[in-house]
Amino acid sequence: MEPVYISVIGGGRCGAAEYALAEEVGRLVAEEGATLVCGGLSGVMEAAARGAKEAGGVTIGILPGHDRTPGNPYLDHVLTTGLGHARNLAVVSSGDSVIAIGGGYGTLSEIGLAAKIGRPVVILAGWRLQNSEGTQGVWYASSPQEALVLAREAMRPAQDAPGGRGSSPG
Amino acid sequence: MEPVYISVIGGGRCGAAEYALAEEVGRLVAEEGATLVCGGLSGVMEAAARGAKEAGGVTIGILPGHDRTPGNPYLDHVLTTGLGHARNLAVVSSGDSVIAIGGGYGTLSEIGLAAKIGRPVVILAGWRLQNSEGTQGVWYASSPQEALVLAREAMRPAQDAPGGRGSSPG
Amino acid sequence: MEPVYISVIGGGRCGAAEYALAEEVGRLVAEEGATLVCGGLSGVMEAAARGAKEAGGVTIGILPGHDRTPGNPYLDHVLTTGLGHARNLAVVSSGDSVIAIGGGYGTLSEIGLAAKIGRPVVILAGWRLQNSEGTQGVWYASSPQEALVLAREAMRPAQDAPGGRGSSPG
Amino acid sequence: MEPVYISVIGGGRCGAAEYALAEEVGRLVAEEGATLVCGGLSGVMEAAARGAKEAGGVTIGILPGHDRTPGNPYLDHVLTTGLGHARNLAVVSSGDSVIAIGGGYGTLSEIGLAAKIGRPVVILAGWRLQNSEGTQGVWYASSPQEALVLAREAMRPAQDAPGGRGSSPG
Repeated sequence: MEPVYISVIGGGRCGAAEYALAEEVGRLVAEEGATLVCGGLSGVMEAAARGAKEAGGVTIGILPGHDRTPGNPYLDHVLTTGLGHARNLAVVSSGDSVIAIGGGYGTLSEIGLAAKIGRPVVILAGWRLQNSEGTQGVWYASSPQEALVLAREAMRPAQDAPGGRGSSPG
Repeated sequence: MEPVYISVIGGGRCGAAEYALAEEVGRLVAEEGATLVCGGLSGVMEAAARGAKEAGGVTIGILPGHDRTPGNPYLDHVLTTGLGHARNLAVVSSGDSVIAIGGGYGTLSEIGLAAKIGRPVVILAGWRLQNSEGTQGVWYASSPQEALVLAREAMRPAQDAPGGRGSSPG
Repeated sequence: MEPVYISVIGGGRCGAAEYALAEEVGRLVAEEGATLVCGGLSGVMEAAARGAKEAGGVTIGILPGHDRTPGNPYLDHVLTTGLGHARNLAVVSSGDSVIAIGGGYGTLSEIGLAAKIGRPVVILAGWRLQNSEGTQGVWYASSPQEALVLAREAMRPAQDAPGGRGSSPG
Repeated sequence: MEPVYISVIGGGRCGAAEYALAEEVGRLVAEEGATLVCGGLSGVMEAAARGAKEAGGVTIGILPGHDRTPGNPYLDHVLTTGLGHARNLAVVSSGDSVIAIGGGYGTLSEIGLAAKIGRPVVILAGWRLQNSEGTQGVWYASSPQEALVLAREAMRPAQDAPGGRGSSPG
């Protein structure tokens, strides 16, 4: 079976609640046997990597600068890009699906880029999006467990994709 | 006085209503004496460039590929990048402010990137965003005229920035 | 007729001889009616833009950061990218041909990127390249005038491309 | 001790001799305990990854598109970027040093980008570079073993960096 990659995105700073959510998501990603990809920095990125490592998973961080030192300590592999915020495209492209937890405009750009290139996006906390044309390809989860279920289902071939469930902002 | 650049973003395909809005925005950008920057393709990008040219303005398109031919016919200057969707960062970075008209996930990524790097974003149609931390730096306009007023005010130094006016999604 | 763009690349610092060469190249680019594209900074980039402006041409600078202020004073249009050295790809992609004058490794990366995507490269000063597979698509000129002649010929359809003339490093 | 990353660059197609060289370099990278980073495709990239895997090493490929399938079968981790040739910057940035084996203009761009951002470059086969300002930071090796020795020495703090040894093209 092909290895699965899941990108977890969110703020470089976050509160305790989001940190706990991200850590739990990371743990579940690892328990699925998927590789966790993130932006490599602190906050949600660190928490997700930490959770994945605690569960024995593999973690990869993709940093915006040319310097590896800002990488959090829970990364197995640290890549640097020198691309600034354009590295966001590599972060979401590398995942078969993307889970967003909180975050600000950087995370919003990643949600947009991910959905634009066809990566399913599951938002667990933070952004709520409305568009007159709908928001196909973006789902909302109310727990880490549901986020993983939605991500797994969304990665299936089209005919098996999740239905309206959780697909419109509350 | 320093020249002002305004980036107009939106879908590569759009309906007649958005086309008309974008054309009017382009016209107003030119009448302000600002240079119009866009992603160079069809739809909203074309309409904005067309409006600006009709009003005697200057238009620049920044394309995703290495080929200049997809550029719309209303561009004075066409740059190619070969960066795919990462060219979105150059489109919004090049504007002193950004006006969004409709569009899908590519436009959403541009809204996120623009706000992340501190470019004021005025949404005239399309996306409505909610975030628990608020959406500072993003405004909503209900007409092309209001969009230009908000963009102009937001480009001023911080102490003169627009207040709550139009700043929360309807 | 389609507008022609010529990208001039070289060091952000340079000596008087290279500055004079670049200024003369810029002048000739403008006299050809071509738009001059460059990286927007000082040194060769400034000199080329200055020469083009002195001859009444149009100049565009594509900067690596998000800040327009490092742009030299001879640019009609200044775009910012936030892409760091990846903006080099946009600089060379935007030209129908590329003329290199001196420069260090940044310029070398631009020569490589330009030739990789099929843009003819004329080296007027600086780098000399050898490769066991040859260096097709790169020419060497000994004067600004010859650089423009080679660039013009190289932009023609394949059957008219310049022959061995000037095509191997001295 | 901090993990070490070595990027191996070269053509997506190559002859048997270069394939063998790259495979041997990959093997030596793994035996040093370093992680091998490459562009993920065929030719030299495949050979280097293959050699590293044969020696029990860890391999990472960074692809230009959004699709993971062009990745060669010897990669432990495959990242996609959607950045086209701008992904070259991420490939060389991620290495503490860079070893070049053959290749054409894409490889040349990587040599330039690597040296520009201060990554030592060891050329084992292919390009020979001359510049009036010298080619500091680029070394030439005549065997895989020497390439690894030079890369290792060049990664040390400045006062320990390799001297003229191998530093000028033959």
